[in-house]
Amino acid sequence: MKTRKIRMGMVGGGKDAFIGAVHRIAANIDGQIELCCGALSINPEIAKESGEMLFLPEDRTYLTFQEMIENESKMPADKRIDFVTIVTPNFAHFAPAMMALENGFNVVIEKPIALSLDEAKQLQKKVEETGLVLCLTHTYSGYPMVKQARQMVKDGKLGAIRKVMVEYPQGWLSTLTEREGNAQAAWRTDPTKSGKSGCMGDIGTHAAQLAEYISGLKISKLCADLNIVVTGRALDDDGNVLLRFDNGASGVLSASQVAAGEENALKIRVYGEKGGLEWHQQEPNTLLVKWLNEPTQIYRAGQAYLSDIAKHNLRVPGGHPEGYLEAFANIYKNFALTVSAKIHGTEPTEAMLDFPRVEDGVRGMAFIDNVVASSQSDQKWFDFNI
Amino acid sequence: MKTRKIRMGMVGGGKDAFIGAVHRIAANIDGQIELCCGALSINPEIAKESGEMLFLPEDRTYLTFQEMIENESKMPADKRIDFVTIVTPNFAHFAPAMMALENGFNVVIEKPIALSLDEAKQLQKKVEETGLVLCLTHTYSGYPMVKQARQMVKDGKLGAIRKVMVEYPQGWLSTLTEREGNAQAAWRTDPTKSGKSGCMGDIGTHAAQLAEYISGLKISKLCADLNIVVTGRALDDDGNVLLRFDNGASGVLSASQVAAGEENALKIRVYGEKGGLEWHQQEPNTLLVKWLNEPTQIYRAGQAYLSDIAKHNLRVPGGHPEGYLEAFANIYKNFALTVSAKIHGTEPTEAMLDFPRVEDGVRGMAFIDNVVASSQSDQKWFDFNI
Amino acid sequence: MKTRKIRMGMVGGGKDAFIGAVHRIAANIDGQIELCCGALSINPEIAKESGEMLFLPEDRTYLTFQEMIENESKMPADKRIDFVTIVTPNFAHFAPAMMALENGFNVVIEKPIALSLDEAKQLQKKVEETGLVLCLTHTYSGYPMVKQARQMVKDGKLGAIRKVMVEYPQGWLSTLTEREGNAQAAWRTDPTKSGKSGCMGDIGTHAAQLAEYISGLKISKLCADLNIVVTGRALDDDGNVLLRFDNGASGVLSASQVAAGEENALKIRVYGEKGGLEWHQQEPNTLLVKWLNEPTQIYRAGQAYLSDIAKHNLRVPGGHPEGYLEAFANIYKNFALTVSAKIHGTEPTEAMLDFPRVEDGVRGMAFIDNVVASSQSDQKWFDFNI
Amino acid sequence: MKTRKIRMGMVGGGKDAFIGAVHRIAANIDGQIELCCGALSINPEIAKESGEMLFLPEDRTYLTFQEMIENESKMPADKRIDFVTIVTPNFAHFAPAMMALENGFNVVIEKPIALSLDEAKQLQKKVEETGLVLCLTHTYSGYPMVKQARQMVKDGKLGAIRKVMVEYPQGWLSTLTEREGNAQAAWRTDPTKSGKSGCMGDIGTHAAQLAEYISGLKISKLCADLNIVVTGRALDDDGNVLLRFDNGASGVLSASQVAAGEENALKIRVYGEKGGLEWHQQEPNTLLVKWLNEPTQIYRAGQAYLSDIAKHNLRVPGGHPEGYLEAFANIYKNFALTVSAKIHGTEPTEAMLDFPRVEDGVRGMAFIDNVVASSQSDQKWFDFNI
Repeated sequence: MKTRKIRMGMVGGGKDAFIGAVHRIAANIDGQIELCCGALSINPEIAKESGEMLFLPEDRTYLTFQEMIENESKMPADKRIDFVTIVTPNFAHFAPAMMALENGFNVVIEKPIALSLDEAKQLQKKVEETGLVLCLTHTYSGYPMVKQARQMVKDGKLGAIRKVMVEYPQGWLSTLTEREGNAQAAWRTDPTKSGKSGCMGDIGTHAAQLAEYISGLKISKLCADLNIVVTGRALDDDGNVLLRFDNGASGVLSASQVAAGEENALKIRVYGEKGGLEWHQQEPNTLLVKWLNEPTQIYRAGQAYLSDIAKHNLRVPGGHPEGYLEAFANIYKNFALTVSAKIHGTEPTEAMLDFPRVEDGVRGMAFIDNVVASSQSDQKWFDFNI
Repeated sequence: MKTRKIRMGMVGGGKDAFIGAVHRIAANIDGQIELCCGALSINPEIAKESGEMLFLPEDRTYLTFQEMIENESKMPADKRIDFVTIVTPNFAHFAPAMMALENGFNVVIEKPIALSLDEAKQLQKKVEETGLVLCLTHTYSGYPMVKQARQMVKDGKLGAIRKVMVEYPQGWLSTLTEREGNAQAAWRTDPTKSGKSGCMGDIGTHAAQLAEYISGLKISKLCADLNIVVTGRALDDDGNVLLRFDNGASGVLSASQVAAGEENALKIRVYGEKGGLEWHQQEPNTLLVKWLNEPTQIYRAGQAYLSDIAKHNLRVPGGHPEGYLEAFANIYKNFALTVSAKIHGTEPTEAMLDFPRVEDGVRGMAFIDNVVASSQSDQKWFDFNI
Repeated sequence: MKTRKIRMGMVGGGKDAFIGAVHRIAANIDGQIELCCGALSINPEIAKESGEMLFLPEDRTYLTFQEMIENESKMPADKRIDFVTIVTPNFAHFAPAMMALENGFNVVIEKPIALSLDEAKQLQKKVEETGLVLCLTHTYSGYPMVKQARQMVKDGKLGAIRKVMVEYPQGWLSTLTEREGNAQAAWRTDPTKSGKSGCMGDIGTHAAQLAEYISGLKISKLCADLNIVVTGRALDDDGNVLLRFDNGASGVLSASQVAAGEENALKIRVYGEKGGLEWHQQEPNTLLVKWLNEPTQIYRAGQAYLSDIAKHNLRVPGGHPEGYLEAFANIYKNFALTVSAKIHGTEPTEAMLDFPRVEDGVRGMAFIDNVVASSQSDQKWFDFNI
Repeated sequence: MKTRKIRMGMVGGGKDAFIGAVHRIAANIDGQIELCCGALSINPEIAKESGEMLFLPEDRTYLTFQEMIENESKMPADKRIDFVTIVTPNFAHFAPAMMALENGFNVVIEKPIALSLDEAKQLQKKVEETGLVLCLTHTYSGYPMVKQARQMVKDGKLGAIRKVMVEYPQGWLSTLTEREGNAQAAWRTDPTKSGKSGCMGDIGTHAAQLAEYISGLKISKLCADLNIVVTGRALDDDGNVLLRFDNGASGVLSASQVAAGEENALKIRVYGEKGGLEWHQQEPNTLLVKWLNEPTQIYRAGQAYLSDIAKHNLRVPGGHPEGYLEAFANIYKNFALTVSAKIHGTEPTEAMLDFPRVEDGVRGMAFIDNVVASSQSDQKWFDFNI
């Protein structure tokens, strides 16, 4: 069947932004998506320069998301974008996402999905009403070896899950860098732009999503200890959380942005009755598979013995490392395949549908609410309320 | 100065025991200690065979610790043992230790020091009264790179400590192996022999001692979640504890004996304002030293750039791995040097005195009491009471 | 300055080919290159399907490279491709490359550049005559940490280089898989398609190029031992080579395709008077930097302390692993920037010009000639003749 | 059966010597051997101090090996030593070894066994005549995971062996440290004390012995390139050797003492038809076992799945790292068990007999002769002559 590329419009991501560039690379990698327009910056000069840098036509280099969505809505079907990707700071997620959905556009959105649980629930309602697709870029669940891990748990290879340990140490906020011109740090540590949590909102949500994604379990209770370690900071930059999952398994989630000397050291271990799994984001092509009375096995990306779902998310043979950008690209690829299937009237496969979406966004916002509330309380265990 | 070997008598450690053999190797390594007698087993046959295996004279192969201590007390000074080493299960620590102290013998004792905090305090009082030396074999603090880590923290290399993460996953109790003839498992999971905690008593105490030893901080508050994971077991086999240290630093201690596929994976990370340290017991000759804006350094055992205290506890040059038995031997060596100094009327150096002792034993028992109480309570934070 | 995307036409790389897909991803990643046409397969059905899969217009989906180059030559300047990328097996490199150059197209070509040293020299001559750019995809020199290593050697950080150890073990040809329908294996082990060497041509050339690239030295003598390990194979599948470099340094190059259980384990170590470097392709974001009397340092991709040339070839911050596809993309990016500079009449920077080219191709073919001759001789040392 | 400790006399190893102390620890560890006398130094003061430090009786603190062997020969059987251990530099191995054998004493001796192949052969002849035991301390073959590797090869787990890669990089002779008071360096780089090779004699012999020990093969041909890298040095400090084994397998042996920043990084890889093995001396408790189409396995010391021969050489459970000193102790233990069996009239088991001996010494000296001759020749391949 002859198909076409899926057309993307971007909100945010002007020339000096970090995550916007990542989204564009992720969308480029598999050659299925075409960047057609953007509201890349509200600064007209930056918007213009960014548009040129990205080879966008002048008349589709917009200044605001409103302008973009309005204009694109009026374009003919064979030119109009298929989805809007939103790469602004948290406080600027909700409005463009809602407007996009209301105008019939699918949406890709950075995590956390919004500034509050309430906003997240409104988006969820709108997605359900419209039948459109909202994809949330929890990048780490896009790694092939994470999918391999999830599949092995699902297949019962480990037996019942007993313990989950997930940690996410970073060190880049060890000093008050938000006061020294670090734009990334500035908005992330500002409650009006980032929401009610810093570290837990920014990276704790990734850790929680990963733990649930791999284990197939849901967090049912938690006991949180959030800290503001660097004097003068407005939001938590460190935290540790005891977890209970819905099957009774226990867990620990530890996240920090003041773990001096760490980069982006997300790591997860899942232990079951028969064995355990260990995965490190910084060496993502390896999955350690541990057994009770047999040697630990090193599962490696690109190998024939992997599950179909892992292979679906791989591009090159073993020993040719894929990384963060490919994990990100997997989310875009599966989203694009799903959108393409809808456009061409076919049914997306289970593998295509395997990307995070609005439900993950709602759980993420609930996680933030719950850890913040727990941390402020003298009560030991908090139910995970949504 | 002409000196002599220090003379040891052993309680427990008959021919099939695990930890007794380890103690003997540790005592042998540096050639400073002589095993002279033993009450190795209360089974006469095993006692006899064990004595022969160890080349002990028949008349110093005792059946009970009482017999041993009584007889040895009456021996001439140039033949009598200098210390008693106690390698029995927890419930059989207190009586021989107390009797040894009362009869003027120094003591080496396996951790945890006793069955209860009260016993530990009685031993502490007796040590203070007699001026004798009681050494507690918290092996892991005997590793040279652990001592290097402690020294670097003490020297302020990391700035103020902000976070301590210590974990001790093992997998050997993943099944109900105590019902299948595993003698090590049987007593460790039996409250009458092991005390009020299983996993936390057996290995959680090591983790807590290591965290305090390296960081130079004291745990001041905790919030514990202990679990009995394997159905039918009488004591906790898993647990996670949120920590607060006396300088305000936060921490997480996680220990498990049901982390299927793990061996003895004690690991600690300490983060300060300027950098972080990471040490894994299973690769003990490496200490990762992390910095805010510079490359991580790999400190290695046996290198000239290490601190004096690390070098004092090393035997061979870099690249010739020392291990668990040498760490254990460091505790015996320093204990023996201290005892020898007392015998020969000299002053032990600070390096000689650097081994765990009765105070560590008391803190260890208090740790057990506190985590058990915390785990059973709905209150979030517990003060670390002694 | 307003610029445009660089336009690419591909020879080979139909839908089931491996390396063609890799080239397309590499060209896609940075959004600077547009695939405009292809002679993807000489099988009309595959050509058509491949063209559709890649969203190519029907009239630019060609059957032969001749047709493609002829037609594209006649297109208007604002539509015509800027370069031809050649991803066919070795025997089919020369003809399209030569024709492309003769018709004014720049060229990207898989390594080894041709079937013989003579062909390589003809291409070199043509490149010199035309002033066009020929880029050879020695992927591994595209890794940022490889560039960091090269820069540190160039800056004299290690002092004079004394020894280079490079190894490239793979295991995928451990059985006679070329007889079992493995298309990749079939042409690579066929002298008429692959040339006079198997393993040394396929991966030994990568190892040699990497050794020279990082060390800044040239191989001046060698002593080779090539082997056909699997019975029934026509070309070497394993080999070890003693090296001498032009400054007198010694070296070892070992490559194998029968190292059972290995993936793509290219690794290089370079030792100088003051220190050493170690880099593994399978963990490409780490460069170990070793010093005489100080701790080894772990240099990591994405960090501020790296050299400008490393940073120029990075896309994301530390701890977000980039991999093989990004290394490949760096070659395309720098090639495209160089071509773009020529198109827009500006001077490419040194960083843009840092990609392998026709001279590397000639040296690669000479390497093959020399190791094959050396292996067949009783003479110990062979001069590296070109 | 009631047995007794085996009695040792030491030649060399006075208080500041390195390897003498290592031998004593190795002999101490298992409590089977008693140091009874020594000719520790020819300097009377050092001899006296060393004797006191080791708690030797004054009348068994000898000045020369001749004195020691003479006196001990005249002692009653229940007091006389059972063996002489020789830890002097190479040039002082032969005379005490020969005299010990002639007087009925078993011998332990540091490698290389002597100063020349001829001396080695004389020792071999004497051993054969007397029926005494001569043990050569090729330490690395004492590691349990090395024995596991050897057993797996022997059991055919890898199929026929195809390639052996062994490397031994050290960096400690990167400068002319022998001129700066480094006693270890001084004799090792002096042909009159060390023999005709430096690096190859000191560590190349270890690498060669390990390769033959694990693979079960014998080197049959070689092509060597030895280098004096540091100006002013008298013996090779670096070298690379192409190998051929008696079954046709190929190999590479690379050794260096000028690999700046390396410690004692002995590493071996053995590849067969079905899989490969990889072992690093600096992480000796791990053996990587690689398979053609299945995940690599991490075999670990102390695990139940290991072979009997590995277990015989282990002391503690998995996760309690044993190291260099325990590997050394395994050689002493097995030697002592063999000597003890002879004393007590029993048959030593195969496991007891598994330590290097005079034949290894002869092969080691032949290896030195052959690599030196090969390196000086223009002929490519040299037969391994003995």
